[in-house]
Amino acid sequence: MSRYNNKTKTQAKKFNNKIMIASSTFTLRNLRVSLADPHRIPKPPQTSYEPGSEPQPRKFKASPQLSRWSRARSLRSGRKFDRTGQQTQLLDPNPPPQLKERVLPEQKDTSLTASDGEDDVVMTAGKSIYMVSDGTGWTVEHSVGAALGQFEHCLVDRNCAVNTHLFSGIDDVGQLMEIIKQAAKEGAMVVYTLADPSMAESAKQACKIWGLPSIDMLGPITQSIASHLNVSPSGGPRRYPLTDEYFQRIEAIEFTIKQDDGASPQNLHKADIVLAGVSRTGKTPLSIYLSQKGYKVANVPIVMGVPLPKTLFEIDPEKVFGLTINPLVLQTIRRARAKSLGFSEGVRSNYSEMDHVREELEYARKILAQNPVWPVIEVTGKAIEETAAVVLRLYHDRKNKCSMPRISKRY
Amino acid sequence: MSRYNNKTKTQAKKFNNKIMIASSTFTLRNLRVSLADPHRIPKPPQTSYEPGSEPQPRKFKASPQLSRWSRARSLRSGRKFDRTGQQTQLLDPNPPPQLKERVLPEQKDTSLTASDGEDDVVMTAGKSIYMVSDGTGWTVEHSVGAALGQFEHCLVDRNCAVNTHLFSGIDDVGQLMEIIKQAAKEGAMVVYTLADPSMAESAKQACKIWGLPSIDMLGPITQSIASHLNVSPSGGPRRYPLTDEYFQRIEAIEFTIKQDDGASPQNLHKADIVLAGVSRTGKTPLSIYLSQKGYKVANVPIVMGVPLPKTLFEIDPEKVFGLTINPLVLQTIRRARAKSLGFSEGVRSNYSEMDHVREELEYARKILAQNPVWPVIEVTGKAIEETAAVVLRLYHDRKNKCSMPRISKRY
Repeated sequence: MSRYNNKTKTQAKKFNNKIMIASSTFTLRNLRVSLADPHRIPKPPQTSYEPGSEPQPRKFKASPQLSRWSRARSLRSGRKFDRTGQQTQLLDPNPPPQLKERVLPEQKDTSLTASDGEDDVVMTAGKSIYMVSDGTGWTVEHSVGAALGQFEHCLVDRNCAVNTHLFSGIDDVGQLMEIIKQAAKEGAMVVYTLADPSMAESAKQACKIWGLPSIDMLGPITQSIASHLNVSPSGGPRRYPLTDEYFQRIEAIEFTIKQDDGASPQNLHKADIVLAGVSRTGKTPLSIYLSQKGYKVANVPIVMGVPLPKTLFEIDPEKVFGLTINPLVLQTIRRARAKSLGFSEGVRSNYSEMDHVREELEYARKILAQNPVWPVIEVTGKAIEETAAVVLRLYHDRKNKCSMPRISKRY
Repeated sequence: MSRYNNKTKTQAKKFNNKIMIASSTFTLRNLRVSLADPHRIPKPPQTSYEPGSEPQPRKFKASPQLSRWSRARSLRSGRKFDRTGQQTQLLDPNPPPQLKERVLPEQKDTSLTASDGEDDVVMTAGKSIYMVSDGTGWTVEHSVGAALGQFEHCLVDRNCAVNTHLFSGIDDVGQLMEIIKQAAKEGAMVVYTLADPSMAESAKQACKIWGLPSIDMLGPITQSIASHLNVSPSGGPRRYPLTDEYFQRIEAIEFTIKQDDGASPQNLHKADIVLAGVSRTGKTPLSIYLSQKGYKVANVPIVMGVPLPKTLFEIDPEKVFGLTINPLVLQTIRRARAKSLGFSEGVRSNYSEMDHVREELEYARKILAQNPVWPVIEVTGKAIEETAAVVLRLYHDRKNKCSMPRISKRY
């Protein structure tokens, strides 16, 4: 803090009120940024389109904030990237020591696998995607994440490397231009959700001028809905209205937490969805994910030798879903779990050894088979988002009486 | 179930494996659908573009599934809509009784406010948006929800009414065409996320032929990223890879649930983010929301007369965030909460009466003021998604040492 004069602090405050930035788990291209006069107010570029114009990095200077972000992100990215063991070059032989601590939670965890502290400063080439939003930024972040799913084959083996940067709460064209200029420095792609048409147009034109690929994530669908409804969009940053539905969602989350892991079986009848399965089939994260969508979820662990709550068999069987998983996969997950929980050898073997795992899954299979109305969902290899889609598909088909035969099935 | 022959069951199974449908809380236009021969395999339309062609509802018949969904959704929508007390017309004077129970959780709750059971069959006009995905459908659902945020001014007072329908796991052109034909029947808009280019093209052309507005939600950004990375997209439905990061996210969710409401204060040092605030400032849902993004969150309730855990003052103060709220708003929330929890009059007054609320907020204010490194976030009128954006903005700025002055601030 002592490094900055008061005017810088003031600008920093302004940025801290306006901008959030988060990095993906990928790598950032090696870039060098020159410190700008922090008091310089960036001017938006003239909005005439210059076809084929190229990035002109010498034309401007980055803000100290952006420079510091880039530095910190570069170091973090280096640490992540180094896990692949590939040879890469240094950004700076003597990075400020305090930068070494600047890691995000997920990176804090994964960095444990890095070979030594010096990995912090390892760098590599990669592509940047700047995400700019006038709101929370969750929509643009979600969309970019989904689109990147189409490039897993390239990302997973590091043949391509991507670093995403989220800037939220950007409702001022000056800040917008600062961000786009920094994007130009990195040769980044810009994806934005800006409700104000003039802000969206400024972003589009600035990206054209700097020769940056850019995507207006919500503009087309908003216009299309506007003509479908024959109503003009508000043009303001999205607010999340605190409606009845919102408070019911909050209630669903609180209900679900209280019911976790078989707690208060007397409340099972109050749940919309009840999940039953052996330990480590993902009941808890799945329950939480569903509760965020407004469903009151209870989950009941199936443990060999522990009788299931009577109420499980008294409630509407159409809302009960069984979860099952491949024994080998379950054993692997349980071994990791037992280790992380520091189980004693005795408990661990009982919990994660193959004979026990198979026996417990067979015990669960019998219980589920005795209740043929409960669908049994195979969760092996499925992320909670995917299992949630299967559960809700069945839930709604049943609610809507879509003639689903009442027999247990695997999905 | 007895209503359907085996072939219908078989087709139903196919649909249950492939299609999930969920309705928004808005209204659906009155539509009449004729039952089709369930064995008829729908043919994709020829893909030549007929400009200005109109929907031709007589040209095809809807599948039994779609018909039943439409019926059930219509009834649910009627129930919702009736809450505004507007006069609307009947779909069917004698609906099958079992349809009356077919409500989604949020509608089950709100329907309690409906005047009587007959409201179930009340109908009204409205616009439909069909959302079609080859994956879970969460991205298209999220994007449409965000875009609809631009029309709150019209939706909130029911000047416009929208009903969204989500079809997920659609990876077969036959099903795609069935859905688009049904969309044409309803004069719906179609928004899709289909990774397979030929499926996306079929959707686009079919919508053109039926004269339906349509939006390819991820096509443009996927193409743009492809040229940015110079890599071809996989073209397959998105899978959520079970990476280290995924399992760290699951771990963060489980950690956060265990720490909820001040549990295990000895683990505060393991948290990435610690939230402190009086009861009903939204600590729990905010913690859960942040944990879904991979952050280990602990929350500590500030209760007058109950000493805060020593560990709260021993951990890195940069990860602690205070939450505060307007006393009047807090009182309203607490009154509702006390009622729903069936507090006794004595407890309730102590919990939700103004003097106590003000006193407790003042007590919290002092504690937060004594710890000036902790930012204090004003949550009044903010949804958890919005508060989360503020928290993470600060969290990352601090991690990245973006020269944020170490003084408590209100946001």
